[in-house]
Amino acid sequence: MSTFSYEQLHGFARAIFIKMGSNEQDALTAANTLLSADLRGVDSHGVARLSGYVRLWEKERINATPSIKVVHETPSTATVDGDAGLGLVVAPFAMKLAIEKAKVAGTGWVAVKNSNHYGIAGYHSMMALEHDMIGMSMTNASPLVSPTFSKERLLGTNPIAVAIPANEEPPFVGDFATTPAANGKLEVLQRKGEDAPLGWIQDKEGKGTTNSHGVKEGGAWMPLGGTREHGSHKGYILGSVVDIFSAVLSGANYGPWAPPFVSYLEPAENPPGEGLGHFFGAMRVDAFRPANDFKNHMDNWIRRFRNSEPTDPNQPVVIPGDPERAMEKERMANGINLLEPVEKDLKALAEKFGVDF
Amino acid sequence: MSTFSYEQLHGFARAIFIKMGSNEQDALTAANTLLSADLRGVDSHGVARLSGYVRLWEKERINATPSIKVVHETPSTATVDGDAGLGLVVAPFAMKLAIEKAKVAGTGWVAVKNSNHYGIAGYHSMMALEHDMIGMSMTNASPLVSPTFSKERLLGTNPIAVAIPANEEPPFVGDFATTPAANGKLEVLQRKGEDAPLGWIQDKEGKGTTNSHGVKEGGAWMPLGGTREHGSHKGYILGSVVDIFSAVLSGANYGPWAPPFVSYLEPAENPPGEGLGHFFGAMRVDAFRPANDFKNHMDNWIRRFRNSEPTDPNQPVVIPGDPERAMEKERMANGINLLEPVEKDLKALAEKFGVDF
Repeated sequence: MSTFSYEQLHGFARAIFIKMGSNEQDALTAANTLLSADLRGVDSHGVARLSGYVRLWEKERINATPSIKVVHETPSTATVDGDAGLGLVVAPFAMKLAIEKAKVAGTGWVAVKNSNHYGIAGYHSMMALEHDMIGMSMTNASPLVSPTFSKERLLGTNPIAVAIPANEEPPFVGDFATTPAANGKLEVLQRKGEDAPLGWIQDKEGKGTTNSHGVKEGGAWMPLGGTREHGSHKGYILGSVVDIFSAVLSGANYGPWAPPFVSYLEPAENPPGEGLGHFFGAMRVDAFRPANDFKNHMDNWIRRFRNSEPTDPNQPVVIPGDPERAMEKERMANGINLLEPVEKDLKALAEKFGVDF
Repeated sequence: MSTFSYEQLHGFARAIFIKMGSNEQDALTAANTLLSADLRGVDSHGVARLSGYVRLWEKERINATPSIKVVHETPSTATVDGDAGLGLVVAPFAMKLAIEKAKVAGTGWVAVKNSNHYGIAGYHSMMALEHDMIGMSMTNASPLVSPTFSKERLLGTNPIAVAIPANEEPPFVGDFATTPAANGKLEVLQRKGEDAPLGWIQDKEGKGTTNSHGVKEGGAWMPLGGTREHGSHKGYILGSVVDIFSAVLSGANYGPWAPPFVSYLEPAENPPGEGLGHFFGAMRVDAFRPANDFKNHMDNWIRRFRNSEPTDPNQPVVIPGDPERAMEKERMANGINLLEPVEKDLKALAEKFGVDF
């Protein structure tokens, strides 16, 4: 495990995107989006994925020089065609558009088709904060999750992020996959040879299993809630809403037809749409009440929850966004640790493209 | 247990609302909203609650002749002051406004303060369907749920409903509390003297318990997900977002200050807002793509999910909204069974107000 500075990794990612053919601005945007995951501690979605994007580009499933277009709009909505561009670039374009719409109409809502993996959901939602807006972001993803009562993988881990500004307190930033845990946690258990908690995954017969390799062996993630008795049908609804908002509204591929991120799996034949889909929202808080009133009450909300009596005196109640902010501060100051396989992967990319690492 | 027709119960509820002082139109709206719960099988939210509304009205916490007002607006948003009216009346007013906004701006979003319990979330969201719009509805509620790591009850069961139109298929209607199960299910277990599954509730020390009386005895519901390991922090985020959208955006009471539904519990002192809060959304599907394209793809989505391979051949995969639709059809045809205590309760109301039952 070695440590790299944010600047080093950011510069490297940017150089790779330029080698893929991205223009300067897009490469910068893509590097900002990608590195936000490493900074916030979502290591599975940061530079560890860089070679994955490159492989999709090599297979011509990512277009490094997209012509991103608004194909449909109303005062408060738009539909964007990402032209198979990097989701890391298409998503900020769409979120900016949602913010511009909100400036005029009070709220802005943008559905995106023909895109690719967009990094962490939270990053895009947070773009709204500096405008005193609530930001929302969601995306569909490679099918890994079975609906309640099903054996088949029909939904992705379909994350939802909501960022809400406060005044003196830092913002509320919720960002979560609609499954009991993130896929990255399963990979950690696999490496350690440990079992998964019952209620995370099912085997290929649809039975709950603790085998942490269960998904790879033909099983599936369960929706948030886990078992039916614990409300998995609610996680199934949530994952479905993300799928429908992101892909059916926009004209992207939905459900089992969502294109896989890994380049060795081919996209489905006869797809019903184009690429992957996202959905973004921006709501001006002063479209509902004066911004300062809202933000002062958010301060009050946050303090009441943060100071609530904890079950364990050593584990205070967490405000969504707190852990990621602490991680960001720490990693900006002390650098980002990369696991050996990730470092090796980046070195191989450096050699392939003749870029310093 | 006796059986009553929809018309009987509807007429009775309407007569009671008129006796409370509601005008003809409001009494009709309130009865429609209330009875939709009985029809759809959410027995805890239907006529079983009628005497609860009456008791709140007797305590002057419900105003039967409200002057419901828009207090703030932009092209796609509005904030409504419910004037302490019945949520059963205030909510349809606000949802209609969201639909009107969407006709012009593409989407409409309405936050409501100074309201009361609004019946089932799903009913309001479904108002959007006939306009080829996606409807959304959420509300905060009496505090019964502890955030992850907390001992305190800071959130309600805060439901979310999303209704999405299709073409030949019936609509997708998801409507769920952001807890592992509905509070009504706990009451059933209590009556039977049975344990609750581990992962639903915690005792007053914050430890998971199977005691189905745990919430009454100073414990709390856990958020959807149940334990931290199974993603309760995600349910906590969801419940918080419902609370903030419903109450911090609108100027209602949030978190532990949300006024209790039961009349024997007094509202908190020094409340930070007014009454209970709701949040509604309406999105024209043709604000994103032609309505027929959208609805045909929804048909395709629904069929693919409904026909997916089930774990148990006798339990097909469920499309959200299917069970409630089946129940509605059955109860419209064969009537609505009321438990003895509910029937007794309604008879007492009939006597009190001199209304036939």
